[in-house]
Amino acid sequence: MISRVLAADLPQHVGGRVRLAGWLHRRRDLKSVSFLVLRDRSGLAQIVLREPVPALAEETVIAVTGTVAANAQAPGGAEVTGPEIEVLSAPVAPPPFDLYRPVVGGTLPTVLDHAPVALRHPRLRAPFEIAAAGVAGFRAALDGLGFVETSTPKIVASATESGANVFGIDYFGAPAFLAQSPQFFKQALVGVFERVYEVGPVFRAEPHDTARHLAQYTSLDAELGFVTDHRDVMAVLTVAVAGMHAAAAERAGAALDLLGLTLPPVPEEIPSIHFADAQELLARHTGEDPRGEPDLAPAHERWLGEWARREHGSEFLFVTGYPMVKRPFYTHPDPSAPEFSQSFDLLFRGMELVTGGRRLHRHEDYVAALAARGEDPAPYAGYLAAFAHGMPPHGGFALGLERWTARLTGAANVRQTTLFPRDLHRLTP
Amino acid sequence: MISRVLAADLPQHVGGRVRLAGWLHRRRDLKSVSFLVLRDRSGLAQIVLREPVPALAEETVIAVTGTVAANAQAPGGAEVTGPEIEVLSAPVAPPPFDLYRPVVGGTLPTVLDHAPVALRHPRLRAPFEIAAAGVAGFRAALDGLGFVETSTPKIVASATESGANVFGIDYFGAPAFLAQSPQFFKQALVGVFERVYEVGPVFRAEPHDTARHLAQYTSLDAELGFVTDHRDVMAVLTVAVAGMHAAAAERAGAALDLLGLTLPPVPEEIPSIHFADAQELLARHTGEDPRGEPDLAPAHERWLGEWARREHGSEFLFVTGYPMVKRPFYTHPDPSAPEFSQSFDLLFRGMELVTGGRRLHRHEDYVAALAARGEDPAPYAGYLAAFAHGMPPHGGFALGLERWTARLTGAANVRQTTLFPRDLHRLTP
Repeated sequence: MISRVLAADLPQHVGGRVRLAGWLHRRRDLKSVSFLVLRDRSGLAQIVLREPVPALAEETVIAVTGTVAANAQAPGGAEVTGPEIEVLSAPVAPPPFDLYRPVVGGTLPTVLDHAPVALRHPRLRAPFEIAAAGVAGFRAALDGLGFVETSTPKIVASATESGANVFGIDYFGAPAFLAQSPQFFKQALVGVFERVYEVGPVFRAEPHDTARHLAQYTSLDAELGFVTDHRDVMAVLTVAVAGMHAAAAERAGAALDLLGLTLPPVPEEIPSIHFADAQELLARHTGEDPRGEPDLAPAHERWLGEWARREHGSEFLFVTGYPMVKRPFYTHPDPSAPEFSQSFDLLFRGMELVTGGRRLHRHEDYVAALAARGEDPAPYAGYLAAFAHGMPPHGGFALGLERWTARLTGAANVRQTTLFPRDLHRLTP
Repeated sequence: MISRVLAADLPQHVGGRVRLAGWLHRRRDLKSVSFLVLRDRSGLAQIVLREPVPALAEETVIAVTGTVAANAQAPGGAEVTGPEIEVLSAPVAPPPFDLYRPVVGGTLPTVLDHAPVALRHPRLRAPFEIAAAGVAGFRAALDGLGFVETSTPKIVASATESGANVFGIDYFGAPAFLAQSPQFFKQALVGVFERVYEVGPVFRAEPHDTARHLAQYTSLDAELGFVTDHRDVMAVLTVAVAGMHAAAAERAGAALDLLGLTLPPVPEEIPSIHFADAQELLARHTGEDPRGEPDLAPAHERWLGEWARREHGSEFLFVTGYPMVKRPFYTHPDPSAPEFSQSFDLLFRGMELVTGGRRLHRHEDYVAALAARGEDPAPYAGYLAAFAHGMPPHGGFALGLERWTARLTGAANVRQTTLFPRDLHRLTP
């Protein structure tokens, strides 16, 4: 048996005999000739038959051996003629919509209910190829900066992030929880490796049905020690996001082309605005006055995204210095204005993509911060213990992979960029 | 402020003025001179003081600015003289054992109880640097073979792998489970991407306390379509393991040196023996007769590991064709001897490191396999649905990262190569 050739490589074999293998994407029967289109992971290939062909349903898995001929009308400029066709496996049910049509014929619920077959549609598959490339770029960028990749527990004894929205689990008869983030572990590991990152699932028992929130998503988490302030963290994040975009362009070019996407450049220095200045801008230009509010409304984020594009030619914008009152207890205050924090959000196209900042690093500061919030320190004993042994000034960030992919591809719902989403109503497939 | 230099780069700055930052690893006070050893992520640096120094506890986080002088006795041949020392943060408790002693002074339970500080010991940290390098090599090898990285749900509706040992979870009031493997998802995604891998946590409610099993570990899972049989899977696995070893040598050389390790070569073709032939060998040479047994005992795996080293000069050995009766329902039988499977284990130093094989791919074969085992097909409806739409012959494997690291570093207990292990008795830190 000759070895398999991918559809995309067919033009390199004109005049030769090849073996293709893939799915019967489409068949068209004319009076004296039939065209089969085979789909494999590389793309499509056309097969021409001049004799009657057995009735094969679309999505039949086939291997085709034949001669490659040049044909300017065929995908890639070559096609297979005089084929022998071997059926490797036949479908027992049709897809919920035609996979060969350029436009996706199913609604989002149909796509999600039938994900194993629906995601075969090239337009539905493409975002995940972009996501895989992006995450590879994230790792490469951080590896280049001396970070160590880690794997930390997803089963934890207490819910430190935000008591609500946490999944309970029966852990050998004792109560435990699914980790809402690797926050504690990545901070503790700054003491070990200085610079760490983790790509892994995080879990939120989101009680609301929104287009942005899921019960599980992939968090790209990083944390680094020996920072001066949050700007050192922002500089690393900028390199990481630039790495994601560069890798997507380099490794997922075909997927981007299929979706008609051009990646926005990541500025070497992403423009940045302080929270208080952002509120001033909004008050001056929007007819609303958000001053005094502790956070930005989505509409304000959108306006700031537009402003960054207009004023700085950037799809990205850092907003820094969010009020302490809206940030978690481990957030480091701004020494020169302690009601504000040394934290940031990175907006991408006017929506929050990343949250990060500098953290407290002194044991006594943690004790004081919990006391100031009126929190019982007991559930935080394990958290505090990690800071008892000398921790450097540090900070980090977390980026949701599915959200990045959604923003990049223009998907309105993060479920379109999640392979098998989990939400309030969905636990299968 | 001048920018920070890492300890390992100190020799490049002889005669210059530098700023180091890290932990006070060790101090030694002689009559007229004191030596401080600073530890950062790159290694150790010696600082010499001729004037009295403040009493700093070990693990104090410091920044040191001074002049670099050559000194053949210092680590790397250079040291910092005339230093100014700034304390960035002071410990409030001592480590559970001295971190500066070359030999680890704590028992395993002490190390695990105090992981955030204990793992700072260079010998305890090193295995995780090797693991991070190994997983990078795994990904690079599979990326090079056209695989797509995926992220799949860890919360599932039913426990298909093995009903026992599964963690239950309260999913918005409905029962759900933590995924014991991405088996179903990676098979379904062969229909989408042909070749997929995932690096992620898997969960087993292991009721036994062993040195090899944990409640959570990191599974390196791969699956590929259009295979002829299990040997195509073994060929990909061989490339993946070779990639792991190459990356460990290239990216974690310092950690390997610290542990005094030389990586065993991965043969281009790993020797392979059929299960039945392995039993024959054991019967002929060990004084025991395991023929008729459906699996290999650990002692037999060890003997086969020795045999592979002696006969083939290989630390690795594939055992193929395990009896169907001991393999999961989705395993593909050997067409020429259907009581045996097209599956394999990869033994590394006489212990199972990887399990894999070819899977069933036809819908009707799944229906028949479940019926033959007397299984109710209802809980498998979602699983079967993925095979209703034309799936190619395929197979895959799963490798436990912590187990690989343990075998490689000679760790007797997989808890030594897990950052924060989870087991029957341990849910913290």
